[in-house]
Amino acid sequence: MNGGGQPASKQSMRRHNLALVLRQVAAGGSASRAAVAARVGLTKATVSSLVEELRLAGLVVEHVPENQGRVGRPGGALALNPQGAAGVGVEVNVDYTAVCVTDLTGAPRVRLTERAGNRSRDAAETLHSAGRLAARAITAARRAGLSPVQVTLGVPGLVHDDKVLHAPNLDWRHVPAADLLGRGLGRQRPPVSVDNEANLAAIGEFQARPAGAGASFLYISGEIGIGAGLMVDGTLFRGGGFAGEIGHVTVTPDGPECGCGARGCLERYAGQDALLEAAELDTVSATRLGSAPAPVPAAATRPGATRRQAVQEAPADAGAPVERLAALAADGDEAAVRALAVAGRALGVALSGAVNLLDPPEVVIGGIYARLAPWLVPSLQVQLHERVTSGRWRSDRLQVSGLGTEAAVLGAAGAGVQAILRDPSAYIDVTGPAV
Amino acid sequence: MNGGGQPASKQSMRRHNLALVLRQVAAGGSASRAAVAARVGLTKATVSSLVEELRLAGLVVEHVPENQGRVGRPGGALALNPQGAAGVGVEVNVDYTAVCVTDLTGAPRVRLTERAGNRSRDAAETLHSAGRLAARAITAARRAGLSPVQVTLGVPGLVHDDKVLHAPNLDWRHVPAADLLGRGLGRQRPPVSVDNEANLAAIGEFQARPAGAGASFLYISGEIGIGAGLMVDGTLFRGGGFAGEIGHVTVTPDGPECGCGARGCLERYAGQDALLEAAELDTVSATRLGSAPAPVPAAATRPGATRRQAVQEAPADAGAPVERLAALAADGDEAAVRALAVAGRALGVALSGAVNLLDPPEVVIGGIYARLAPWLVPSLQVQLHERVTSGRWRSDRLQVSGLGTEAAVLGAAGAGVQAILRDPSAYIDVTGPAV
Repeated sequence: MNGGGQPASKQSMRRHNLALVLRQVAAGGSASRAAVAARVGLTKATVSSLVEELRLAGLVVEHVPENQGRVGRPGGALALNPQGAAGVGVEVNVDYTAVCVTDLTGAPRVRLTERAGNRSRDAAETLHSAGRLAARAITAARRAGLSPVQVTLGVPGLVHDDKVLHAPNLDWRHVPAADLLGRGLGRQRPPVSVDNEANLAAIGEFQARPAGAGASFLYISGEIGIGAGLMVDGTLFRGGGFAGEIGHVTVTPDGPECGCGARGCLERYAGQDALLEAAELDTVSATRLGSAPAPVPAAATRPGATRRQAVQEAPADAGAPVERLAALAADGDEAAVRALAVAGRALGVALSGAVNLLDPPEVVIGGIYARLAPWLVPSLQVQLHERVTSGRWRSDRLQVSGLGTEAAVLGAAGAGVQAILRDPSAYIDVTGPAV
Repeated sequence: MNGGGQPASKQSMRRHNLALVLRQVAAGGSASRAAVAARVGLTKATVSSLVEELRLAGLVVEHVPENQGRVGRPGGALALNPQGAAGVGVEVNVDYTAVCVTDLTGAPRVRLTERAGNRSRDAAETLHSAGRLAARAITAARRAGLSPVQVTLGVPGLVHDDKVLHAPNLDWRHVPAADLLGRGLGRQRPPVSVDNEANLAAIGEFQARPAGAGASFLYISGEIGIGAGLMVDGTLFRGGGFAGEIGHVTVTPDGPECGCGARGCLERYAGQDALLEAAELDTVSATRLGSAPAPVPAAATRPGATRRQAVQEAPADAGAPVERLAALAADGDEAAVRALAVAGRALGVALSGAVNLLDPPEVVIGGIYARLAPWLVPSLQVQLHERVTSGRWRSDRLQVSGLGTEAAVLGAAGAGVQAILRDPSAYIDVTGPAV
C-alpha cells in the first residue's frame, strides 16, 4: 500500500483504495456499493468505479435483486467471486506430500494427499512427484471453473529466493525447489514460490481465524521439526528471512545432542521423532519397540472441514504414528503419557522465553500438537504460569489450532489469494479485465 | 502516516508529504528545496509550500547564501532547526537518576546525573526528586533557546498507560509514574510519558547509528535487570505492550531461583547483581566480600560524547561497581574473569534462542555489557556459533553499543523529537506557526 517512503499520488491512491474496497467486500456481510462507501469514507461515485474495476477483473460478483434492472446497480450485494482466481498450495513434508487449491473466499476446492517416504528419496524425485500431484489438482480446479494464478510450496527448512538452503529432516541442502517443482507441473503452469512450512502454517491459521479473533499471535507448528511463526497485525514477521526456528531454542544447555550440532534443543524433547522415541515407539511404524507390530489405526480425523468442497481423495494416513501415540496416551499408557508430559514441559520452557521476549497476545499450538494437546497442555501451562514474568500469563492465551497438520498446505494455497486481496491493482494491471 | 485502513485523502496526503519532506531534511546533506523535490518525486511548488509550513513552525531553517535576496529562496540549504523543539529524557534506575535534553537534530544539549539509592526510597520520593532534576534541565534548555515539548521517563519495569505496573528491582508496584514525576516538574511543564528503560535504550541506540547502518536489530540492555528491544525497520516491536523481558528467559530450567519466582532466568547469571556476586564483590560497594573495602575507582569513562554540548554536570559514578569489576578482570582476577565467562555463556544461550526465533540481522549488547564486552564476548560468541541453526551465525552480527549505560536517557530524550519528525503535522496543528 502507501508505504512511508513514497509520495502519495493519484496512482497510489487508486491502488490503496482498490485494496480498501476489496478488503471490505472480503470482510463479508454482502454489503452494497453504498454500504461499502459509508464504511470506508469515500464517495459513492468513487466506490462505484472501483467496484466496477474489481468486477470486470473477475474478483468481485454482485448479486442484483431480481426485481431490479441492471442500470445503476444501487443495491446489489457484493461478494468475492468464488469462480475466479485461485491459489495452489503444495506441502512437502518428511512422510507425506499434500496439495490444496483454494478460491478467492479462502474455501478449499481441491485437496490431494500422497503418503511418501520423502526422507529416503532425493529432492529432485520428491519435487517432481509433488509437481505432478499439483498438476492433477490444477486440472481439477480448472474443470471446476477456477483460474489458479500462483503455486506456493512449503517445506520444513530454511528458504531463500525460492531455493531451499537446508531442510535437515529431508536431508536437503541447496535445492532449487521452485525449478524442480515446476518441471513436474508441466506446461501452462502458474508461477511457483517457496516458503518455510511453519510460516505458511501460521498464515493458514490466521486465514482460518473467525472474524473478530486477534490478528497477532505466535504459532508453533509441531512436526518432525518444530517451527514458529510470529503474526503481527496479520503480517508474518520474518526477521532477516530465517525467523521461526524455535525447534533449536535451547531448553537445557547440556541436554542431548541435536541433529543441528547443538545440545538440548527443543526438537530433542518435543519433535515428533523425539516424542515417539521417548514413548518407546518406532519413529516410522509407530509400533512399540521390542514388541510385535501393532495394527495401524484407522485414518486420522482431519480437522478443518471444508465448505464448497469439490475434489478430495481419501486422506492418506499421514498422521498415523501420531494417532498411535494419541491412542496409547488415551489408554493411559505410562511411557506415552510421560513422553508427552516431558515434551509439554520443554515446550513450556521455550514458549515462556518467547512470551517474555515478544509478549504475543496469544500462543497457538498446531501441527501434531493439536492432536496431542490433551496430554501436552497441562505441563505446558504449568511452565508458562511459572516462567512468564510478573504473573502476566493467563491460561486462555494458549489456543489449540483447529487445523492441525493441514494448516501449512491451506496457508500455502491462501498465500496466492492473499497477495491479490492485498494489492488487487497489481493483479488487474497484469491480467486486464476478465470479460 | 497513511495506514492500511484509512482512505487516502488530501488531508492525509499533506500529512504524509510533510513527514516525507522533513525526513529528507533530517537525512542531512543540506539539500535545497529543488533537491528535496527531486528526491521525493513531488513538484517543486508542492515541496516549496511544505517547506514553508515547516519553516514557519520552527522545525526547519534555511541558510540563504549571502549574495541572494529573500524572494523565491531557490537555493537555500535546508536543515533541522537546532534552536527549536526539544525532547527531555529522564531515566530512573536502581542506583542513579539521569536527565538529558536533545534538540531536533538529536544532539544532547543538557545532561544532569544524580547518584541515588532509588532502591531504598519509595517511588513518590524518587520520582519527585527526578522531576526536580528534570525541571533544572528544562530551565537550562530554555535559557539556551530551546523549547522542550515532551518529557519521557524510562524505568526498568513493565509500563502500561504511563503507569509502572511492576519494577521488581526498584520494588515498585502500580506506580502512577507520570503523575508523580509531573509534581516534581512544577508549573509550565511539558506532557510526560513513561516507557520501559530497555525499549528507550534500543531507540537511543537506533538514533545514534551512523547513516547507512541497519535499522533492524535486537538490542540487549544489561543493568541490574536485563531488557531487550527488537527494532524492526526503525520501529520498536512491542508485542502486547510488555515485550523485551529477556532477563527472564530460561537458561537452565532447574537453575537458581530468581526474584520473579521462576528458576534459572538469564538475570540470575548475567544481571549486574548476579555478576558482582559471582565475582565475590559486594553488589553496592563493589568491594571484595570478606576483605577490607577497596578504594572506589575514578569516574567511569562515558562513551557517546556529544556535539553542541551546553550544560553538563560532572558525571556521577553510576557505573562504579561495574568499573571495579572491569578493573579486576583487566588485572586477570580469577573470580571476575570466571564470572564474566559464565555470564557470557548464559547470554549466548538466551541470545541464540532469540536469534533462532527472530533472525535479527544484528544483535547489539549495551548498558553495562558495553563496558564488560572484552570478557563477555568470547564465551558469548562460542554459544552463538554452536546454537544458531545451520551455521548461519557470523561473528560480525554481534555489535557492542557505543553508548553504554547512556542509551536509555538519550533514547528517552529523542522519543519526543522523533514523534515530531514522524508526524510534523500533529505538532504544527497544535502549536501553530512559531513566528
